[in-house]
Amino acid sequence: MTNPVIPLTPAGQSPGALPVFERIGIIGLGLIGGSVALAARGIWPSGLVIGVDRNEVLERAVARHAIDVAASDLTIVSEADVVILAAPVLQNIEILLRLPDYVDKPVIVTDVGSTKRGIVRAAATLPRRFTFIGGHPLAGSTHSGIEAARPDLFAGRPWLFAGAGGEASGEPREEALRRLFRFVQALGAAPHVVDAEAHDRLVAFISHLPQLAASALMQAVGDAAGEEGLALAGRGLIDTTRLAGSPAEIWADICTSNADEIGPAIDTLVGLLRQVRLGLQDREAIARLFDAARRWREALVRVDSR
Amino acid sequence: MTNPVIPLTPAGQSPGALPVFERIGIIGLGLIGGSVALAARGIWPSGLVIGVDRNEVLERAVARHAIDVAASDLTIVSEADVVILAAPVLQNIEILLRLPDYVDKPVIVTDVGSTKRGIVRAAATLPRRFTFIGGHPLAGSTHSGIEAARPDLFAGRPWLFAGAGGEASGEPREEALRRLFRFVQALGAAPHVVDAEAHDRLVAFISHLPQLAASALMQAVGDAAGEEGLALAGRGLIDTTRLAGSPAEIWADICTSNADEIGPAIDTLVGLLRQVRLGLQDREAIARLFDAARRWREALVRVDSR
Repeated sequence: MTNPVIPLTPAGQSPGALPVFERIGIIGLGLIGGSVALAARGIWPSGLVIGVDRNEVLERAVARHAIDVAASDLTIVSEADVVILAAPVLQNIEILLRLPDYVDKPVIVTDVGSTKRGIVRAAATLPRRFTFIGGHPLAGSTHSGIEAARPDLFAGRPWLFAGAGGEASGEPREEALRRLFRFVQALGAAPHVVDAEAHDRLVAFISHLPQLAASALMQAVGDAAGEEGLALAGRGLIDTTRLAGSPAEIWADICTSNADEIGPAIDTLVGLLRQVRLGLQDREAIARLFDAARRWREALVRVDSR
Repeated sequence: MTNPVIPLTPAGQSPGALPVFERIGIIGLGLIGGSVALAARGIWPSGLVIGVDRNEVLERAVARHAIDVAASDLTIVSEADVVILAAPVLQNIEILLRLPDYVDKPVIVTDVGSTKRGIVRAAATLPRRFTFIGGHPLAGSTHSGIEAARPDLFAGRPWLFAGAGGEASGEPREEALRRLFRFVQALGAAPHVVDAEAHDRLVAFISHLPQLAASALMQAVGDAAGEEGLALAGRGLIDTTRLAGSPAEIWADICTSNADEIGPAIDTLVGLLRQVRLGLQDREAIARLFDAARRWREALVRVDSR
């Protein structure tokens, strides 16, 4: 490479370094897919970022200089060394299962979806030329879509990989995992390997439950208080319901694909709320809740990676 | 007044203006009482701010230059034109009922507690020399205590008054309300008169339910995920549980004094969460929740006074 090494890029690798993947195919250019595209183009100017989405989204992605090549169908992904599925969870699975019709040479495939069991299971049915390792960057924004994409979205954030080991492991798989690690590290993320089952149970609590609680709380408060009442709300309600602006489409897929883990998580929260309700007149019960919550909150602030 | 008028003070009135109250007695120097004290001293340097609390708190209040006179018992409040009760809700009621032992001349009394029915009812038993109008500044912080107090805490925030009308209304009461309006306006707040019953029902939803939901959510997630799991959480959990650091003592009083309104508010939230749980596989049910929540969230952001 003859490009000079320029310091102070938003991610972990200098522009001009040898691309981890020469041709990156990204299917779905929303917040996450768009941010991967922007970061990859900034870090590896000599590499090629191929974006696949509806024409309307492609136009906006091109306007943001997020992709080198725009395509509205999957034929083009046969050109990629890595295919990154970045549509909603269930669409990712459908697309994954259609890839054999379009790609006839060995290729690494990963995804960025919030649940992992379903897609890891689906990937096990693919021909051997596909090396699939599921991914989940724990990064987000209160805004969605390509307009909210940022090359530094993943800086300092964990990026979990699931479905990398077990019976399907072996030389190509280990090499693929190494390359995916280098890829996300270049984006500034911290890669971890997790078990798909443990992943889905954990995110049911740390991600899906807070989202559903925020949405349900916002509906409960809005229905009762109306717009006049909301005008009197403090910072507390504003913070607690920030997630309530999240897009329904993405979350319908997440709920469907992780219902068996989210259900018990909701039960746990409902159980605690019913305990609180029974103990409203009991100062010790209230103190116990607040003390437990404050201790976990302090732990959360302490381990927060930002 | 010979003091020069200095512009650009943090609150709505210039320092040196004629004090609305010459001698302000504040009982309880936590976040709210301390902020009232700091603001009043800044706005009316010629006025006197008398603080009553435990010695340990008084020392910290003096160190912050929040008060002119420090006292650890109630005798001193006989000197005040206005007594502001700023302890936890149930302590405010106890102190209110003891005031006749200490104050034998006409005095205006208000409070800053989060529930209003109990204290308004208690005030109705006081001798006629006490003109009580309940108050509730809708301002807060994730930190508590005199250390977190700020003179601009009330800037742009609503300040609700309850128990100002009805059978007990009359000339002294209307004059007291006018002065309290001018007082909180000088602190930068926007005063409103509300009915105590309507107040307590509204705050059960806009303030108490978000607090309890945040605490219960933090406990549920912390217990399930542990510290290792929390390290993988995103911004969503951080925002949604920000309230979970709130002090138990204040909230035990709020829960006790508003249990009959908070209970049904919790039931509403639990009902919605159970609906979500039943509809996890039903894309339309999830879409309905997210759409309703997003609409209210947009309304909340639109009417937010900050």
